[in-house]
Amino acid sequence: PIRDFVSAPPSKLVVVMVGLPARGKTYIAKKLTYYLNWVGVDARVFNLGQYRRKYLGGQKPAVFFHPDNEEARGMRRQLAMKALDDMFDWFGTGGIVGVLDATNSTRERRRAVYDKCIAHGHKVFFVESVCNEDSLVTDNIYKVKVTLPEYRGLDVEEAVADFKARIEYYKKRYQELDMSLDPDLSFMKMMDISNRAFLINRVSDYLQMRLVRYLMNVHIQPRTIYISRHGESVNNTLHLIGGDTPLSPRGREYAKKLKEFMDIEQPDGIQVWCSTLRRTAETAQYFSNVQAWKALDELDAGECDNMSYEEIAAKYPDLFASRENDKFRTRYIRGESYQDVVDRLEPRLMELERLEEPVLVVCHQAVARCLLAYFQQIEDLASNLPYLEVPLHTVIKVTPQAYKCDIQMCNLGVDSVNTHRPRSRPSTCESV
Amino acid sequence: PIRDFVSAPPSKLVVVMVGLPARGKTYIAKKLTYYLNWVGVDARVFNLGQYRRKYLGGQKPAVFFHPDNEEARGMRRQLAMKALDDMFDWFGTGGIVGVLDATNSTRERRRAVYDKCIAHGHKVFFVESVCNEDSLVTDNIYKVKVTLPEYRGLDVEEAVADFKARIEYYKKRYQELDMSLDPDLSFMKMMDISNRAFLINRVSDYLQMRLVRYLMNVHIQPRTIYISRHGESVNNTLHLIGGDTPLSPRGREYAKKLKEFMDIEQPDGIQVWCSTLRRTAETAQYFSNVQAWKALDELDAGECDNMSYEEIAAKYPDLFASRENDKFRTRYIRGESYQDVVDRLEPRLMELERLEEPVLVVCHQAVARCLLAYFQQIEDLASNLPYLEVPLHTVIKVTPQAYKCDIQMCNLGVDSVNTHRPRSRPSTCESV
Ligand SMILES: Nc1ncnc2c1ncn2[C@@H]1O[C@H](COP(=O)(O)OP(=O)(O)OP(=O)(O)O)[C@@H](O)[C@H]1O
Ligand SMILES: Nc1ncnc2c1ncn2[C@@H]1O[C@H](COP(=O)(O)OP(=O)(O)OP(=O)(O)O)[C@@H](O)[C@H]1O
Ligand SMILES: [Mg+2]
Ligand SMILES: [Mg+2]
Repeated sequence: PIRDFVSAPPSKLVVVMVGLPARGKTYIAKKLTYYLNWVGVDARVFNLGQYRRKYLGGQKPAVFFHPDNEEARGMRRQLAMKALDDMFDWFGTGGIVGVLDATNSTRERRRAVYDKCIAHGHKVFFVESVCNEDSLVTDNIYKVKVTLPEYRGLDVEEAVADFKARIEYYKKRYQELDMSLDPDLSFMKMMDISNRAFLINRVSDYLQMRLVRYLMNVHIQPRTIYISRHGESVNNTLHLIGGDTPLSPRGREYAKKLKEFMDIEQPDGIQVWCSTLRRTAETAQYFSNVQAWKALDELDAGECDNMSYEEIAAKYPDLFASRENDKFRTRYIRGESYQDVVDRLEPRLMELERLEEPVLVVCHQAVARCLLAYFQQIEDLASNLPYLEVPLHTVIKVTPQAYKCDIQMCNLGVDSVNTHRPRSRPSTCESV
Repeated sequence: PIRDFVSAPPSKLVVVMVGLPARGKTYIAKKLTYYLNWVGVDARVFNLGQYRRKYLGGQKPAVFFHPDNEEARGMRRQLAMKALDDMFDWFGTGGIVGVLDATNSTRERRRAVYDKCIAHGHKVFFVESVCNEDSLVTDNIYKVKVTLPEYRGLDVEEAVADFKARIEYYKKRYQELDMSLDPDLSFMKMMDISNRAFLINRVSDYLQMRLVRYLMNVHIQPRTIYISRHGESVNNTLHLIGGDTPLSPRGREYAKKLKEFMDIEQPDGIQVWCSTLRRTAETAQYFSNVQAWKALDELDAGECDNMSYEEIAAKYPDLFASRENDKFRTRYIRGESYQDVVDRLEPRLMELERLEEPVLVVCHQAVARCLLAYFQQIEDLASNLPYLEVPLHTVIKVTPQAYKCDIQMCNLGVDSVNTHRPRSRPSTCESV
């Protein structure tokens, strides 16, 4: 969609993170950046901590962040401006959304950032993360802060103490976003992630609205998402793509094994989703409470449905070549591209983000690739997503961690054909 | 989707409106109710004003709303409880979302409503509308309040004065929703519709999230939406459905006329959308800046694509009969139902709501029917939507008014075949 704009691309957007240390700014920045890339909007994080470590060296004790340390403040301000310059350069090469990941905890700093962006003709959207749950903050410090480069060599408790001192220094000058003090700014304030409380002001464009929607759905409760392709189908055994055939005997065996596997996992209050195609419904048949979603149907091969790859190559050589070249964006005649699948999957993905309960998604190869790419945050989506290996008769167990998801491939030990078609050329870089 | 739940339906949701008179509560209640019905969730408004007029008579001067008028207050409280009883009865017959449209302007009243709902096992979501723009409120009074039954016979200025007095009485006891005073309530406070400012707390389930998303997109800026089917296509002239054929000579003539028509309308900053099918792109060819959306493609007739109705009846008699019987929900084999089209159109509809600029949507018969049904708020969607008349070579001009949209059909005077297939039976009531 965004990519279907025929003429002027949408204007650039600078997302400015705001908040004390260990409030999940980097977590949110990474997540929303990946989400945007997944839906086809080129986005990138510019993390001030990395600039600081690169230009000023890694070993900064808490006192560097002391409010009276004006020299240090000046340096951090300069680095923020440097990060913006780099962002604007990257906009020049086609980037659409840049995320400035820094504390930006004073009104003065935010104004400087805002003015610079506006002067360059870019829109600005502030995203603040507030967390007043001390135990959660402490948790975050243990999970992701004690391993920072600046704490190399320190013991854990020393590192925690230093990081908490850093937070206290920031608190002295911290000014939250405020409806009466910042009435003209476009912002989203995440006031308390556990209670999904938000303050939102002047969401003025398409991208901002998408971000707000996404951030309203994100949560940090631990839970697991299970993704499985349907069991082996009759068409799989015939090496035909698409269609709506029933399961093969081995596929039916997998359906039973899948239920046994989930019975051992025993996730409380699980939801089970399948597609509207016969092979996923049959695979989920031993579960109660199954929801069928058309958005989970396999990539529509249009006129090539029910054909073998060899037939397609013979009958539609141009299409076949175009898929070899750009499998992600090539649309089957009267059918879909991977990009189209991502678009129609998006509302389901959003619902996966929102749910705090575990979910088992019984779907198809292309759909599973799109989901896996998202949870694995794979880079260079267009060239890698369509080649992700998602074998039959294997449950993908996705468990969110601090910044990434832990991904386990659980082969349930039922034989099947291999439906994976590797890239025909070793790498896109080698082609002209 | 919601309707694909195989077992337990989602729990019931009571949406409780909050706000002073003339703040758009009824407007919002109606809009979100219609939106829910459109996406397949049975929703209904219970308007307290109607209960008051029905049970206490229509002629209530402002003094009825005086804060010291305890008797009147008691009566209104009783009526609110009566409305809830009726809502719960309706839940018993399958309703899912009931909207209590009343001022509910005190914490005490809201608590009474909340407790009653919870006691019956229903979830509660408060939606408050705040508007501190006096000119907008006055505008609303002139637009929709002076024509109330209680002002029959009064002149306009008297009616306005009485209504303003009513507002002043409410203001004396009004208590806004507040994050610190109502931390446990799920609510969305629309703080200022012109600036899209919102306070959101504890959005805890799927339906609530959908409502929040919808209400964040709604606005009341005047603008016009233009909907047109593509010009007559080759398949149209052959009486074949679907396909991806180019325009006929008359269709190409319409493409020119469409551009001329829009040049006369001259809406500022218009966006033009088409589908990914050839016939809409050709119809929009004289516009610059056209966006192509797959979500706007015609209902997918699957295996029946490119067939005539006669062929379908002969080759797929069961499908044909099922469509005669329930055209809205019947899915073509390997294709879509109208319901499926509504689902995939939903993100585009949301974007139509959000945009303050005019939009021209060049689409297809089924898609245009879904959009028209929404803007016309037609009742009994499933039996009426698939039979809406959307002739070729006609621009549908949709202009939002106070509670409804004004709909104009502009025939551009280029001949075409008629693709409308009326209901085969005069009315569903007559069948068994
Ligand atoms: N809204 C939130 N409130 C509190 N914790 C959160 C929130 N969102 C994510 N987290 C948690 O925050 C942790 C990551 O912290 P993160 O590094 O992102 O903090 P930060 O604000 O970037 O800190 P710093 O200022 O030091 O860079 C993760 O464990 C994640 O679960
Ligand atoms: N959030 C809003 N703020 C101000 N006006 C609005 C808002 N939403 C809709 N409106 C406008 O409100 C008008 C309709 O008012 P409506 O009858 O819905 O008010 P109400 O709050 O239901 O009043 P009452 O308490 O008398 O029933 C429409 O003209 C609409 O444009
Ligand atoms: Mg960080
Ligand atoms: Mg009203």
